[in-house]
Amino acid sequence: MTRYWLLLLFVVALMPTARAQGSSADAELSAFNQKFTAAVLHMDNAAVMALWAKDGVTLLPGLAPIQGKDNIARWLDGLSAKFPGYRVVKQEDDFHPVQAGGDWASEWANTVQVVQPPEGKPPIETHGKMLLVLHREADGWRIEAEMWTPSPAQKP
Amino acid sequence: MTRYWLLLLFVVALMPTARAQGSSADAELSAFNQKFTAAVLHMDNAAVMALWAKDGVTLLPGLAPIQGKDNIARWLDGLSAKFPGYRVVKQEDDFHPVQAGGDWASEWANTVQVVQPPEGKPPIETHGKMLLVLHREADGWRIEAEMWTPSPAQKP
Repeated sequence: MTRYWLLLLFVVALMPTARAQGSSADAELSAFNQKFTAAVLHMDNAAVMALWAKDGVTLLPGLAPIQGKDNIARWLDGLSAKFPGYRVVKQEDDFHPVQAGGDWASEWANTVQVVQPPEGKPPIETHGKMLLVLHREADGWRIEAEMWTPSPAQKP
Repeated sequence: MTRYWLLLLFVVALMPTARAQGSSADAELSAFNQKFTAAVLHMDNAAVMALWAKDGVTLLPGLAPIQGKDNIARWLDGLSAKFPGYRVVKQEDDFHPVQAGGDWASEWANTVQVVQPPEGKPPIETHGKMLLVLHREADGWRIEAEMWTPSPAQKP
């Protein structure tokens, strides 16, 4: 159970996201999604945090809310430090717009992530769902609120 | 573990919500929150479903997404039938606006719910977090997307 939660935290930290989808009504939103995917695949915390609004809040399973970009960044860096040698090797997302067309947007996604642990341990596949509320700033979309929760396990 | 998931489903179905908060920038949003609270406290599925948009989606732990008001209503009624004699005896929420001021809104909340099982079994207290995306229709706010996920256990 402890292992489950640690892995879940790890998966959440490397936040499931974002192929560009034909269903997106907004090319800038697709750009946001693509940047997010790249940041996740490279496990680049600075690139992930560049997509957050200053007052954003993340709402993750088993954790109290973490509010504010600085606090989220500190938590994310601490989490990465706990999992040396882990790599994201697959990220698939199925994004669906909820709200689009103005300076605010929201989208939800089914997410699949595969993480390769170090030392030849078996890969871990995690299925989940994400809900994002985004705000358009002068130079692009930023995350104002994020939540993730697990979905039923499925065969790889 | 099965018991945990059943209870979680029950708690989620009776969706944590919504005292009017001074932080709400919108009196109609407070009205929405109050209606939602009343519906939860009375375990009135029809009243809960009256607050959903036709194309809304609910994103709950351990479940595939449920999209569409009719599908959500069917799921909720089925769930209630599985828990005869259970009562919601406490509902506390701490709502925070994310987006407000137009025809779309979003808010998140820390949620505390106490459920009294039948036959003198001990009450169940569940802490969680909820994220809602709402759309204003002609006669009030409706839920377009909802997600809930557990928070750390706390002493009652």
